[in-house]
Amino acid sequence: MEGNSPCASCKLLRRRCTKDCIFAPYFPSDDPHKFSIVHKIFGASNVSKMLQELPVHQRADAVSSLVYEATARTKDPVYGCVGAISYLQNQVSQLQMQLTVAQTEILCAQMQQVPAMAEQQIEAYDNNLTGMPQLMNNASSSSLAQDQLKREFLWT
Amino acid sequence: MEGNSPCASCKLLRRRCTKDCIFAPYFPSDDPHKFSIVHKIFGASNVSKMLQELPVHQRADAVSSLVYEATARTKDPVYGCVGAISYLQNQVSQLQMQLTVAQTEILCAQMQQVPAMAEQQIEAYDNNLTGMPQLMNNASSSSLAQDQLKREFLWT
Repeated sequence: MEGNSPCASCKLLRRRCTKDCIFAPYFPSDDPHKFSIVHKIFGASNVSKMLQELPVHQRADAVSSLVYEATARTKDPVYGCVGAISYLQNQVSQLQMQLTVAQTEILCAQMQQVPAMAEQQIEAYDNNLTGMPQLMNNASSSSLAQDQLKREFLWT
Repeated sequence: MEGNSPCASCKLLRRRCTKDCIFAPYFPSDDPHKFSIVHKIFGASNVSKMLQELPVHQRADAVSSLVYEATARTKDPVYGCVGAISYLQNQVSQLQMQLTVAQTEILCAQMQQVPAMAEQQIEAYDNNLTGMPQLMNNASSSSLAQDQLKREFLWT
């Protein structure tokens, strides 16, 4: 009971709102829709039983979730909250699939980079190796040229 | 009513199961738990009203979702189905984050590949260009060497 006015639940149920009313802390008189919706779906008696079975510090959360569920059932009388669960499960499946595709793409890119890097390393290694023979070739070709020219010199 | 035995709902509510019982098609007598769980959470009267407000072809789905919701509320009296919704919403957020990270990684890899490819193309272009001057240099260096050797010949 808030001040002198009964809570939204007692007002709807047309009963006296006592000091220890189980609904009063969660269903203020200025929000009658909040109680009427849970009453329509779960029934006041069931909501009262559910709240009584819970410790006081968990009751506000329980009321919030009951209001959420009742609203969902009112909007979607066939599937209620389960419609949202089904939608979210599909979304999770699609995202997991997209993530798998993306991770495979990353893996493929990494595997393409590895041979490319290996190729670069092999190329760099080859250049280091071929650097020496090239010098040797240059040296030998130059001496060959000199030999040839010397021969030319001898014959001229 | 199935044969001579009352449906699970009428059995629990201790009432006569008529030919047109709204519960009978969905709550067979061999599965008493199915009705008792929705009765505990929603109340038989509310379930009956909800089914009456739906076309016959949607009632089986509605019963399935009510059983699912009631089971969730029994397992988790504070959050019920909303706990599953919250869990799935978190999973969706995490997957969306992971997907964004993966897609950014793919984008970065693609942007790294573009300059690498451009570099390779520039390198290939340079090689084509430098191929000619190299020949020219070789030619000129060889003629220079010959000139020098000719000079050496003259001086010897």
